[in-house]
Amino acid sequence: MDQLFMKLAIELASSTIGQTSPNPPVGAVVVKDGSVVGVGCHVKAGEPHAEVHALHMAGTKSIGSTVYVTLEPCSHHGRTPPCADLLIEKKVKRVVIAVQDDNPKVSGKGFSKLKEAGIEVEVGVCHEEAKDLYKGFFTFINKKRPLITLKAALSLDGKLSTYSGDSKWITGAKAREKVHEERRIHDCILVGVGTVLHDNPSLTVRLEEETRQPVRVILDSSLRTPIDSKIANTIEAKTIIFVGNQITEKELIPYQEKGIEMIKTSESKVKVREVISLLGEMGYHSVYVEGGSKIHTSFIEENLFDELILYYAPKLIGGIHNGNLLNGLGNVMMKDVPNLTLLSVETIGTDIRMHLQNEVN
Amino acid sequence: MDQLFMKLAIELASSTIGQTSPNPPVGAVVVKDGSVVGVGCHVKAGEPHAEVHALHMAGTKSIGSTVYVTLEPCSHHGRTPPCADLLIEKKVKRVVIAVQDDNPKVSGKGFSKLKEAGIEVEVGVCHEEAKDLYKGFFTFINKKRPLITLKAALSLDGKLSTYSGDSKWITGAKAREKVHEERRIHDCILVGVGTVLHDNPSLTVRLEEETRQPVRVILDSSLRTPIDSKIANTIEAKTIIFVGNQITEKELIPYQEKGIEMIKTSESKVKVREVISLLGEMGYHSVYVEGGSKIHTSFIEENLFDELILYYAPKLIGGIHNGNLLNGLGNVMMKDVPNLTLLSVETIGTDIRMHLQNEVN
Repeated sequence: MDQLFMKLAIELASSTIGQTSPNPPVGAVVVKDGSVVGVGCHVKAGEPHAEVHALHMAGTKSIGSTVYVTLEPCSHHGRTPPCADLLIEKKVKRVVIAVQDDNPKVSGKGFSKLKEAGIEVEVGVCHEEAKDLYKGFFTFINKKRPLITLKAALSLDGKLSTYSGDSKWITGAKAREKVHEERRIHDCILVGVGTVLHDNPSLTVRLEEETRQPVRVILDSSLRTPIDSKIANTIEAKTIIFVGNQITEKELIPYQEKGIEMIKTSESKVKVREVISLLGEMGYHSVYVEGGSKIHTSFIEENLFDELILYYAPKLIGGIHNGNLLNGLGNVMMKDVPNLTLLSVETIGTDIRMHLQNEVN
Repeated sequence: MDQLFMKLAIELASSTIGQTSPNPPVGAVVVKDGSVVGVGCHVKAGEPHAEVHALHMAGTKSIGSTVYVTLEPCSHHGRTPPCADLLIEKKVKRVVIAVQDDNPKVSGKGFSKLKEAGIEVEVGVCHEEAKDLYKGFFTFINKKRPLITLKAALSLDGKLSTYSGDSKWITGAKAREKVHEERRIHDCILVGVGTVLHDNPSLTVRLEEETRQPVRVILDSSLRTPIDSKIANTIEAKTIIFVGNQITEKELIPYQEKGIEMIKTSESKVKVREVISLLGEMGYHSVYVEGGSKIHTSFIEENLFDELILYYAPKLIGGIHNGNLLNGLGNVMMKDVPNLTLLSVETIGTDIRMHLQNEVN
């Protein structure tokens, strides 16, 4: 039954991906005599952890219960008291954990504390199913930067647009809806100013249901984002614009007055590596990079991406022009071309979605 | 049980794809009182049809039997006597057919003949599973040309090579082996002279088992195929070189002496449409076009292809250069880009194979 209850805990955690940063998403299930008596998830940083909600719901039934939790319970005083202490206090008999915490403040310490208190601890149940919940969080903890996912919609021959720049639409309605679902579970959406100028997107999540909105990040060396663009005038999502160091404070004011966070980088051209590092300092766990061509090329040339999501439309656009997923000069010899790892391939409506993983240096 | 026996007939027919041209592949199974008593397939043009082999094996058990055959039995005297007559003569009780013949000499006439003789006829059993057996044959019958399949191995960003021209190897060993299996079931393999000059391929089918060899077709306007190339010096497969009309008879002699069929086309530049038409006149049902870039671009720009098989390696090659699946200028607006239909997508080793269908004008 361990797997069954852990899967419920994973479902609970999954439902909150994207809304908990800088904390990880966590789900917890309390089981007494084979019955579910408490469920909980961590809703938002600063609010109670998953175990707290689940144990509160269980009440006195927590005594002698088994608690299933997707991530090793914290053992340190953060914004909330340590969950390990609460599990001991609530006289839990057994704790089952899917994934050990990579956070050095927690890693292994949660286990030890529980074991010392005589609680039976089992680690690694449904580890495979649960580990993806923490890829953003662990990247953040270990690399001090968000997990970077490049996403592109392209033709079979690798074009993001026609030579005239037209890209509306390459993929079909179902793929575009899936993109909104993917936006929703990321902390940030990142685009270049070229995309803002060309498409004037709002870059919000538009799903049938009301939803949280990721932070919109624009790379804009020369501050060309129009002050009357949709992005500058939609307030439902936070916006950060990274500009070059030649931009004056005075130039920033009209944007700041609209509530946009304006960040001057150290060089005249905004560099993706610096932006990612700054986003890490701000506590963001995940960035969904939506291009265009120049932005994708920068991230790929820097080998600064963890995952790649490609939506192929069954079309051939053609032409020798700069509307490619990867421009620049490219590689010289096949032997120098690095291999990515395919995580999944599936059809979404009439399009094909590929999800790949990259080995980042 | 009809489906079960028809599936066996389809397996029999499938095993001969590529070896029966200009005839279609056909399988036949004779069943008496629920037992298989005869099986057969058409092996080679000029040799007995599937029904003949199967009925011969059944002997007198054919009386009162059911015969499962993948394609409507012929009713006309071709190189062999009509199979419909034989089925009547052998006192078959019932004939089950997967696909009706598109050949105007046969279409519906086989049925009528059988029905007139009092034989029960059922058409369309396992039609979906069987119809692909005849796509080459029906294209040939209806359009007087072979079915054209473009095949390419490419990176995720649509490159067939690096900017230096290196393409060894984009895809892995398993994908390359699958390509040999695909070559085997086609009548012809077609490449441009650029591929011959660049890679010096032998363009034969290399599988562990001994196998038939498709005809190798080279498009070579200026007759640049080196007389010492592998293609010109391997005799296990027939070779046809199409050249421009400026090439003199004398220039052809050294190639003809090596057994190569030399065909002068009507213009100085060999045009794919003329080549395909000539291959149709020669009775070929299927052509597997292996590129390179220029050849694929010609076929795509002419919208002269029925199917597209793409092997994507999980790699990003990059660069703005002419090593694309589709060069030229390309389309201007997205709305003008035609849609292909995805038939299947699957992983082959570490690569991804997509099979698409095109609506040919």
